[in-house]
Amino acid sequence: MVRFLVLYQQPADAAAFDRHYFGVHVPLVKRLPGLRRYTVSRDAARIRGAEPFYLVAELDWDDTASMQRDFASPAGQESARDVDNNLAKLSPGIHSMVYELEEL
Amino acid sequence: MVRFLVLYQQPADAAAFDRHYFGVHVPLVKRLPGLRRYTVSRDAARIRGAEPFYLVAELDWDDTASMQRDFASPAGQESARDVDNNLAKLSPGIHSMVYELEEL
Repeated sequence: MVRFLVLYQQPADAAAFDRHYFGVHVPLVKRLPGLRRYTVSRDAARIRGAEPFYLVAELDWDDTASMQRDFASPAGQESARDVDNNLAKLSPGIHSMVYELEEL
Repeated sequence: MVRFLVLYQQPADAAAFDRHYFGVHVPLVKRLPGLRRYTVSRDAARIRGAEPFYLVAELDWDDTASMQRDFASPAGQESARDVDNNLAKLSPGIHSMVYELEEL
Protein backbone atom coordinates (compact mmCIF):
# COMPACT_ATOMS: atom_id res chain seq x y z
CA MET A 1 0.00 0.00 0.00
CA VAL A 2 1.21 3.48 -0.87
CA ARG A 3 0.28 6.47 1.30
CA PHE A 4 0.23 10.20 0.49
CA LEU A 5 0.52 12.18 3.75
CA VAL A 6 -0.31 15.89 3.77
CA LEU A 7 0.27 18.10 6.84
CA TYR A 8 -1.36 21.55 6.76
CA GLN A 9 -0.20 24.27 9.14
CA GLN A 10 -2.72 26.39 11.04
CA PRO A 11 -4.51 28.70 8.54
CA ALA A 12 -4.99 32.37 9.36
CA ASP A 13 -8.68 31.92 8.49
CA ALA A 14 -9.58 28.39 9.55
CA ALA A 15 -13.23 28.71 8.51
CA ALA A 16 -12.25 29.74 4.95
CA PHE A 17 -9.75 26.89 4.79
CA ASP A 18 -12.36 24.36 5.95
CA ARG A 19 -14.95 25.65 3.48
CA HIS A 20 -12.53 25.22 0.61
CA TYR A 21 -11.01 21.94 1.79
CA PHE A 22 -14.25 20.11 2.52
CA GLY A 23 -16.43 21.91 -0.04
CA VAL A 24 -14.11 21.88 -3.07
CA HIS A 25 -10.94 19.85 -2.52
CA VAL A 26 -12.40 16.65 -1.02
CA PRO A 27 -15.02 16.20 -3.80
CA LEU A 28 -12.27 16.71 -6.42
CA VAL A 29 -9.95 14.17 -4.81
CA LYS A 30 -12.74 11.65 -4.39
CA ARG A 31 -13.02 11.49 -8.19
CA LEU A 32 -9.68 9.63 -8.32
CA PRO A 33 -10.66 6.05 -9.19
CA GLY A 34 -7.73 4.25 -7.55
CA LEU A 35 -8.05 5.99 -4.16
CA ARG A 36 -8.67 3.23 -1.58
CA ARG A 37 -8.93 5.24 1.63
CA TYR A 38 -9.00 8.95 2.49
CA THR A 39 -8.90 10.06 6.11
CA VAL A 40 -8.44 13.44 7.74
CA SER A 41 -7.60 14.36 11.30
CA ARG A 42 -8.47 17.71 12.83
CA ASP A 43 -7.32 17.08 16.39
CA ALA A 44 -3.59 16.34 15.99
CA ALA A 45 -1.82 16.67 19.34
CA ARG A 46 1.92 17.22 19.26
CA ILE A 47 4.04 14.70 21.16
CA ARG A 48 7.58 15.70 20.04
CA GLY A 49 8.96 18.35 17.71
CA ALA A 50 8.12 21.88 16.79
CA GLU A 51 4.69 22.17 15.33
CA PRO A 52 1.21 20.88 15.72
CA PHE A 53 -0.68 20.72 12.43
CA TYR A 54 -4.15 21.98 11.72
CA LEU A 55 -5.12 19.15 9.40
CA VAL A 56 -3.51 15.80 8.61
CA ALA A 57 -4.76 14.08 5.44
CA GLU A 58 -3.83 10.52 4.48
CA LEU A 59 -4.68 9.05 1.09
CA ASP A 60 -4.00 5.42 0.25
CA TRP A 61 -3.55 3.58 -3.04
CA ASP A 62 -2.86 -0.09 -3.69
CA ASP A 63 0.50 0.65 -5.30
CA THR A 64 2.68 3.36 -6.79
CA ALA A 65 1.49 2.71 -10.35
CA SER A 66 -2.18 3.34 -9.53
CA MET A 67 -1.31 6.46 -7.51
CA GLN A 68 0.78 7.85 -10.37
CA ARG A 69 -1.99 7.06 -12.85
CA ASP A 70 -4.46 9.00 -10.68
CA PHE A 71 -2.04 11.92 -10.20
CA ALA A 72 -1.61 12.18 -13.97
CA SER A 73 -5.37 12.05 -14.71
CA PRO A 74 -7.41 15.23 -15.32
CA ALA A 75 -8.96 15.00 -11.82
CA GLY A 76 -5.50 14.45 -10.30
CA GLN A 77 -4.09 17.48 -12.09
CA GLU A 78 -7.09 19.56 -11.08
CA SER A 79 -6.60 18.49 -7.43
CA ALA A 80 -2.91 19.49 -7.55
CA ARG A 81 -3.79 22.87 -9.10
CA ASP A 82 -6.38 23.39 -6.37
CA VAL A 83 -3.64 22.95 -3.76
CA ASP A 84 -1.33 25.40 -5.58
CA ASN A 85 -3.95 28.01 -6.36
CA ASN A 86 -6.15 27.83 -3.28
CA LEU A 87 -5.10 25.70 -0.30
CA ALA A 88 -1.47 26.87 -0.37
CA LYS A 89 -2.78 30.43 -0.02
CA LEU A 90 -5.04 29.54 2.89
CA SER A 91 -2.47 27.49 4.88
CA PRO A 92 0.94 29.08 5.59
CA GLY A 93 2.77 25.79 5.08
CA ILE A 94 2.06 22.40 3.57
CA HIS A 95 4.32 19.39 4.03
CA SER A 96 3.57 16.33 1.98
CA MET A 97 5.24 13.07 1.16
CA VAL A 98 4.57 9.70 -0.40
CA TYR A 99 5.72 6.37 1.01
CA GLU A 100 5.12 2.67 0.89
CA LEU A 101 3.88 0.91 4.05
CA GLU A 102 5.78 -2.07 5.47
CA GLU A 103 3.79 -4.02 8.08
CA LEU A 104 5.75 -4.92 11.21
CA MET B 1 -9.12 4.69 15.12
CA VAL B 2 -6.32 6.66 16.74
CA ARG B 3 -2.95 6.98 15.03
CA PHE B 4 0.49 7.85 16.44
CA LEU B 5 2.69 9.24 13.64
CA VAL B 6 6.45 9.49 14.17
CA LEU B 7 8.76 11.18 11.63
CA TYR B 8 12.50 10.59 12.08
CA GLN B 9 15.04 12.86 10.39
CA GLN B 10 18.05 11.39 8.59
CA PRO B 11 20.45 9.90 11.19
CA ALA B 12 24.18 10.61 10.95
CA ASP B 13 24.75 6.85 11.24
CA ALA B 14 21.81 5.20 9.50
CA ALA B 15 23.10 1.66 10.10
CA ALA B 16 23.33 2.26 13.88
CA PHE B 17 19.83 3.80 13.87
CA ASP B 18 18.39 0.82 11.96
CA ARG B 19 20.08 -1.69 14.25
CA HIS B 20 18.58 -0.02 17.30
CA TYR B 21 15.16 0.71 15.77
CA PHE B 22 14.51 -2.74 14.33
CA GLY B 23 16.53 -4.75 16.85
CA VAL B 24 15.42 -3.09 20.10
CA HIS B 25 12.60 -0.57 19.63
CA VAL B 26 10.22 -2.57 17.43
CA PRO B 27 10.24 -5.65 19.73
CA LEU B 28 9.54 -3.36 22.73
CA VAL B 29 6.64 -1.60 21.01
CA LYS B 30 5.16 -4.87 19.81
CA ARG B 31 4.60 -5.85 23.45
CA LEU B 32 1.81 -3.23 23.69
CA PRO B 33 -1.38 -5.31 23.78
CA GLY B 34 -3.76 -2.74 22.23
CA LEU B 35 -1.58 -1.97 19.19
CA ARG B 36 -3.65 -2.87 16.12
CA ARG B 37 -1.27 -2.01 13.29
CA TYR B 38 2.37 -0.90 13.10
CA THR B 39 3.85 0.14 9.77
CA VAL B 40 7.11 1.81 8.83
CA SER B 41 8.18 3.49 5.62
CA ARG B 42 11.80 3.85 4.61
CA ASP B 43 11.32 5.38 1.18
CA ALA B 44 9.43 8.63 1.91
CA ALA B 45 9.65 10.97 -1.10
CA ARG B 46 9.03 14.65 -0.43
CA ILE B 47 6.25 16.28 -2.46
CA ARG B 48 5.99 19.70 -0.75
CA GLY B 49 7.78 21.33 2.17
CA ALA B 50 11.24 21.36 3.57
CA GLU B 51 12.36 17.97 4.64
CA PRO B 52 12.26 14.40 3.58
CA PHE B 53 12.23 11.99 6.52
CA TYR B 54 14.39 8.92 6.96
CA LEU B 55 11.71 6.82 8.62
CA VAL B 56 7.96 7.28 9.01
CA ALA B 57 6.30 5.07 11.65
CA GLU B 58 2.54 4.78 12.09
CA LEU B 59 0.96 2.97 15.03
CA ASP B 60 -2.78 2.46 15.31
CA TRP B 61 -5.06 1.78 18.26
CA ASP B 62 -8.82 1.31 18.35
CA ASP B 63 -9.34 4.43 20.47
CA THR B 64 -7.63 6.98 22.70
CA ALA B 65 -8.35 5.04 25.90
CA SER B 66 -6.55 1.90 24.74
CA MET B 67 -3.61 3.94 23.42
CA GLN B 68 -3.27 5.79 26.72
CA ARG B 69 -3.49 2.53 28.66
CA ASP B 70 -0.64 1.12 26.55
CA PHE B 71 1.45 4.31 26.89
CA ALA B 72 1.09 4.12 30.68
CA SER B 73 2.00 0.41 30.90
CA PRO B 74 5.55 -0.73 31.78
CA ALA B 75 6.24 -1.66 28.12
CA GLY B 76 4.87 1.73 26.99
CA GLN B 77 7.07 3.60 29.43
CA GLU B 78 10.07 1.51 28.43
CA SER B 79 9.38 2.31 24.74
CA ALA B 80 9.20 6.05 25.50
CA ARG B 81 12.46 5.90 27.48
CA ASP B 82 14.08 4.07 24.58
CA VAL B 83 13.16 6.99 22.32
CA ASP B 84 14.55 9.54 24.80
CA ASN B 85 17.72 7.66 25.67
CA ASN B 86 18.61 6.07 22.36
CA LEU B 87 16.64 6.98 19.22
CA ALA B 88 16.65 10.73 19.97
CA LYS B 89 20.46 10.54 20.06
CA LEU B 90 20.67 8.65 16.78
CA SER B 91 18.22 10.87 14.82
CA PRO B 92 18.77 14.65 14.83
CA GLY B 93 15.05 15.38 15.00
CA ILE B 94 11.86 13.50 15.78
CA HIS B 95 8.39 14.89 15.12
CA SER B 96 5.46 12.96 16.49
CA MET B 97 1.77 13.49 16.95
CA VAL B 98 -1.40 11.63 17.78
CA TYR B 99 -4.72 12.03 15.98
CA GLU B 100 -8.05 10.41 15.37
CA LEU B 101 -8.94 9.30 11.82
CA GLU B 102 -12.14 10.52 10.16
CA GLU B 103 -13.04 8.53 7.03
CA LEU B 104 -14.07 10.69 4.07
